[in-house]
Amino acid sequence: MNFSSKLLEDAVNEFSKLPGVGQKTALRLVLHLLNKEQEEVEHFGNAIVRLRKEIKHCSVCHNISDSHICEICVAPKREKEVICVVEDTRDVMAVENTSQYFGVYHVLGGLISPMDGVGPSDLFIDSLVQRVATTPVKEIILALSATMEGDTTLFYLYKRLKDFQIPITTIARGIAFGGELEYADEITLGRSIITRVPYENSLIK
Amino acid sequence: MNFSSKLLEDAVNEFSKLPGVGQKTALRLVLHLLNKEQEEVEHFGNAIVRLRKEIKHCSVCHNISDSHICEICVAPKREKEVICVVEDTRDVMAVENTSQYFGVYHVLGGLISPMDGVGPSDLFIDSLVQRVATTPVKEIILALSATMEGDTTLFYLYKRLKDFQIPITTIARGIAFGGELEYADEITLGRSIITRVPYENSLIK
Repeated sequence: MNFSSKLLEDAVNEFSKLPGVGQKTALRLVLHLLNKEQEEVEHFGNAIVRLRKEIKHCSVCHNISDSHICEICVAPKREKEVICVVEDTRDVMAVENTSQYFGVYHVLGGLISPMDGVGPSDLFIDSLVQRVATTPVKEIILALSATMEGDTTLFYLYKRLKDFQIPITTIARGIAFGGELEYADEITLGRSIITRVPYENSLIK
Repeated sequence: MNFSSKLLEDAVNEFSKLPGVGQKTALRLVLHLLNKEQEEVEHFGNAIVRLRKEIKHCSVCHNISDSHICEICVAPKREKEVICVVEDTRDVMAVENTSQYFGVYHVLGGLISPMDGVGPSDLFIDSLVQRVATTPVKEIILALSATMEGDTTLFYLYKRLKDFQIPITTIARGIAFGGELEYADEITLGRSIITRVPYENSLIK
């Protein structure tokens, strides 16, 4: 691209480093910001820099937080003895949005993925084992994606945690609510037949 | 969305104000930046704030520029007596990318659009008339989008400029190079038959 301004080129290049943003989109976003009030643009720039500078991770569950211990870990209403293990903060938000879970979390910070060079030591797995060993825990829910990396991590976590003799569960897999059978993939449909449940158990109480 | 951090929420809200960026995309972009080095994130934030603060518009052609007069207007090689009128800086870049134009530009800053409340006085049209009246001009090329707003602006510009007795041209409209007739829309194809040119004129010299 032929930029008429070095400042413009810099800003476009910075934007196009973001995932899924090409040069054309970056230019569109930058020109959009150029039309905004200076104050607004400063607020945009500062929000990001401040986030990176001041963000903390909860020392208990490793979730993104404004303070040393996150709001969920500190809330008296949450059941501290049930731990839901998730990949990252987006999954915490997804589970929170369901309003169906009242325990606490443990954020791994990723999934085991030999292809991407991510091993167990790169994740907060030791700290999970430590947490289970030192605090009373009634149940560990493994809520990981149903992908190869998720399954690998699931298997590894199970091996590390099973000796504690604490119930370890995983979230249910099967046909999504509202899903039509004819569009379900063979593996999901096949597994959901094998792991079928008595009708009365499938009802939401 | 249930954010675990006010800082995170702020940053996501700022990002989701950008055109075409929803809350989910904004969250993905912000988490991407969180994983970067602080220095890199500061560079990103500062590039945008600096752009908004320090950017200038060329006092001759109104294109985005780092200085009082832009590189194109100041270049001795460019033909100052041929003016290409475009909507915005993106169109300057598009024409520059063709490497087929050696004159100078005039950036209108938009198109006349009564629906969006943009009238002739909101654009740099008076300054174009002023420029044509006070400097020697051999040709005015109107390179506007082939939309309703483009055509309205074209018509208005023609009315304002025709008394100067300077050749006013518009960029050619027709079937795009590489375009197949069966996929061309009726208006374009119909017009390109009406405005057909002798074969020898259609050859690139």
